[in-house]
Amino acid sequence: MIGVDLGGTKLLAGAVDADLNVHHRAHRVAPGGDRMAVLERVISAVEEVRAAVGGEVRAVGFGIPSLIDQGRGLVVTTVHLPIAGVPFRDLMAERLGLPVHVDNDANVALLAEHRFGAAAGARHAALLTLGTGIGGALVVDGRLVRGALGAAGELGHMVVDLDGLPCHGSCPNRGCLETVASGTALARFAAEEAAADASGPLGRAEAAGRPLNGPLVTELAHDGDAASIRCLRRLGEGLGVGIANVVNVLNPEVVVVGGGVIAAGDLLLAPAREVVAARALSPSKDLVRIVPARFGAESGMLGAAVLAMDAEG
Amino acid sequence: MIGVDLGGTKLLAGAVDADLNVHHRAHRVAPGGDRMAVLERVISAVEEVRAAVGGEVRAVGFGIPSLIDQGRGLVVTTVHLPIAGVPFRDLMAERLGLPVHVDNDANVALLAEHRFGAAAGARHAALLTLGTGIGGALVVDGRLVRGALGAAGELGHMVVDLDGLPCHGSCPNRGCLETVASGTALARFAAEEAAADASGPLGRAEAAGRPLNGPLVTELAHDGDAASIRCLRRLGEGLGVGIANVVNVLNPEVVVVGGGVIAAGDLLLAPAREVVAARALSPSKDLVRIVPARFGAESGMLGAAVLAMDAEG
Repeated sequence: MIGVDLGGTKLLAGAVDADLNVHHRAHRVAPGGDRMAVLERVISAVEEVRAAVGGEVRAVGFGIPSLIDQGRGLVVTTVHLPIAGVPFRDLMAERLGLPVHVDNDANVALLAEHRFGAAAGARHAALLTLGTGIGGALVVDGRLVRGALGAAGELGHMVVDLDGLPCHGSCPNRGCLETVASGTALARFAAEEAAADASGPLGRAEAAGRPLNGPLVTELAHDGDAASIRCLRRLGEGLGVGIANVVNVLNPEVVVVGGGVIAAGDLLLAPAREVVAARALSPSKDLVRIVPARFGAESGMLGAAVLAMDAEG
Repeated sequence: MIGVDLGGTKLLAGAVDADLNVHHRAHRVAPGGDRMAVLERVISAVEEVRAAVGGEVRAVGFGIPSLIDQGRGLVVTTVHLPIAGVPFRDLMAERLGLPVHVDNDANVALLAEHRFGAAAGARHAALLTLGTGIGGALVVDGRLVRGALGAAGELGHMVVDLDGLPCHGSCPNRGCLETVASGTALARFAAEEAAADASGPLGRAEAAGRPLNGPLVTELAHDGDAASIRCLRRLGEGLGVGIANVVNVLNPEVVVVGGGVIAAGDLLLAPAREVVAARALSPSKDLVRIVPARFGAESGMLGAAVLAMDAEG
């Protein structure tokens, strides 16, 4: 199978076998340009992978950071790519001459984790991916939850703070989980710490023009900077409230946390676990495991391949 | 089938046919007493119904306000009844000489609504029942969501207000949906209105020793009392935040609202719908219908019968 992660800022395609070994990868960066340019870039990456592995490709799966209409294989809405309204599945199938399967990027990431990774064996699982926002996906009774329109799993847009900060982008809400537990929230916490102590590592980094983002905060925290550790604790505590909600609503065996900031490890997850233990209900909270994702930057590509495997049987 | 709603303060058993017609009802009130007394009262009610309808009963279903271990038919935890740890299914099957099926009361209420009521035809649905707390249940892909231990569906215990009021009973959390959208919350709103205007209808009712509960507030609101209408609006707005979360997370076609306070009708549901329109994401919020339950006080009994029908085929 070929799996393709069609991200907002990069494209990764790979030939993936049934054991999730990757035999060839094709990268494309900065997928700017108009609709045709994006689609041609996708096709060239898939054809590159296909040529590299010979003629054995049975199907192609795509993970796209968009709302997908599963029935029609249509990209309904998308924030980062100029392909809203594109009948992506049929168009790609025609151009590639192969069966094509399409789903949301968080859904395919959970597919990979559920079949081969941190949620393997679970009948009920959730994934939260912390990036600029929060990607979310759910497995109930062994199957992805897509909802009536394919729009389920927006775990980042649970209100956890009634009168909280405005959410961003196309979300009209306030106090969403994203406002307390995303990369955007982490940057806000770091800016507050930098302002409070201009001579500390975060303050000096800001003065030097470095972005106060997840990689920086994680690096400083691993070096022992107390302010950076506090930022990750705040992030983990916010995340823990969201996970507590998921635990009470869905009673999963496992909640998988992904995204770049998971490099912080237990500096992030330990506070999240503490909050779940303090706030969620028994026996659900006693059962659930809160674990880092197994697959990092390749989860979308791998999961897209799993999507195609599942569909092709 | 015989359906039994084993509530904390009353017991209702009925013989129910495949079209959900009820042929005989047996009531028992005040199920106080110890474990044996409760169980004997259950058996006498079932036997009364069975005798009244002749020998045609194939199975008995129970809805119980408790966490049920479906695998073992065991009542795991229960707030209002002295039957925690009771192997309810096997014990009743032995005493009654009939197949017995057991589930949470909110789950069976949604079964009834999903098969015959306000959620009929939906692939994805949620139920919130406003009582002292909030009962919740979910249908995903046409099936009840029970979770890993049967503890899923605790929609009343989603945090919607990070640093909100303490939740009650066995819940260690704060700012749960129950703190802003249950009968308990409504009574708090009414007490605030009564304190602010002692000469108004709510203030006079309180002075007269009447409990400031759902029936009173609904009655006064229907009579045009502005303060009571405000109470129901606050309740509906809180409910709307909880429904917005369910809409974003599960993308259901329909959310059913039950419980006594649903007698307030659109005085409650219109504000809830406004909040969902303002706070949830498209296209999920554009699709979802927010509707009153079809079945009221008999939903548990009817749903328990549906549970037995489904299990017996």
